[in-house]
Amino acid sequence: MTTDRRYRLYWEDFPAGHSMAFGAYPVTKEAVIDFAQRYDPQPFHLDEEAARGSLFGGLCASGWHTCAMAMRMMCDEYLLEAASLGSPGIDELRWLKPVFPGDTLGMRMEVLQARPMASRPQVGLVQTRWELHNQHGEPVMTMQGWGMFRRRPAA
Amino acid sequence: MTTDRRYRLYWEDFPAGHSMAFGAYPVTKEAVIDFAQRYDPQPFHLDEEAARGSLFGGLCASGWHTCAMAMRMMCDEYLLEAASLGSPGIDELRWLKPVFPGDTLGMRMEVLQARPMASRPQVGLVQTRWELHNQHGEPVMTMQGWGMFRRRPAA
Repeated sequence: MTTDRRYRLYWEDFPAGHSMAFGAYPVTKEAVIDFAQRYDPQPFHLDEEAARGSLFGGLCASGWHTCAMAMRMMCDEYLLEAASLGSPGIDELRWLKPVFPGDTLGMRMEVLQARPMASRPQVGLVQTRWELHNQHGEPVMTMQGWGMFRRRPAA
Repeated sequence: MTTDRRYRLYWEDFPAGHSMAFGAYPVTKEAVIDFAQRYDPQPFHLDEEAARGSLFGGLCASGWHTCAMAMRMMCDEYLLEAASLGSPGIDELRWLKPVFPGDTLGMRMEVLQARPMASRPQVGLVQTRWELHNQHGEPVMTMQGWGMFRRRPAA
C-alpha cells in the first residue's frame, strides 16, 4: 500500500452496471492436457480415448483450467492496468458445458455492485458477474464474485 | 456411460457426514510463478519485489492456482478411484489467507448432502465442503460445491 505507482483504473472505474465484452482465447489440446497432468488428471481431461466414453463425449478442459483461462482474459483486458488488490472469493460458479480443444473463449463482465470497504478506507469492493462463452455463442461458465481495488488517490 | 470399468468408489460411498483429511502439497516458487505467467500475471503472483509492497506482503499463489492444487489433492486422495463424472459448480469459494512458496497445504472434506439425480437415475449428486489449511493449521481457502458420481452398479 506504500507504492505510489499510478494505474489507469481504480475502484471508481467499476461502478454498478459497468459492463465489458472481451477475449478470444484459443483452447489448445496441449494446454488442456498439460493442465490436467499437473492438477486434474481425471481421464476425461487427459486421454482422448477415455474421454469419448465419458459424459462429456470428448477430451475437455478441467473446470479449474477454464477458470484460469478466464482469469488470463480478465488480466489482459483490465486487471493488469488496475489497482487490483486480489479477491476475497467467489459466490457462485457454474460449469455449464464442456470446453473442448479448438474452442475459442470470450467473456462478458458486468458489475453488480460497488462499495467502499469499511475496514480499509483506501480500498473498494466490486461484485461482478462473468459469463464465458465459446465460438458458437454458447455459455460454458458463469461466475459471480468479488474484487478489491484501491480507490483513486486525490489528485 | 457405456464403459464397464469397475471403480473403488461410487456415489454410495459419499453419504452426508462422510469426512476425510488428507494432502501434504508442497507449494514451490517455481510453480507459483509458472502458473502466474500462464494465467494470472498480476505482480503479486509473479514478482517478489512487487509482491513485498502489496497487501499480501510477499509473493503468493494465484487463488486459481490454490484451487488447482486442491483439485490435485482431491484427485490423488479419492477422485481418481471414483466413478466421478465432473461437477456442475461451486456454491461458495473464499480465499482467506495468502498461500506462499514454502507452504505445505492439506485439506479436509465433509459431505453436506447426497442425492440421486432426478434426470439421470444412474448418477448421484454430492455436495461437499472443503477446507484448505497451511502447515500452521491456518485455513487458507474454503469451498462448497457439487460433484456427480455414477451410482454403484448392481452386483
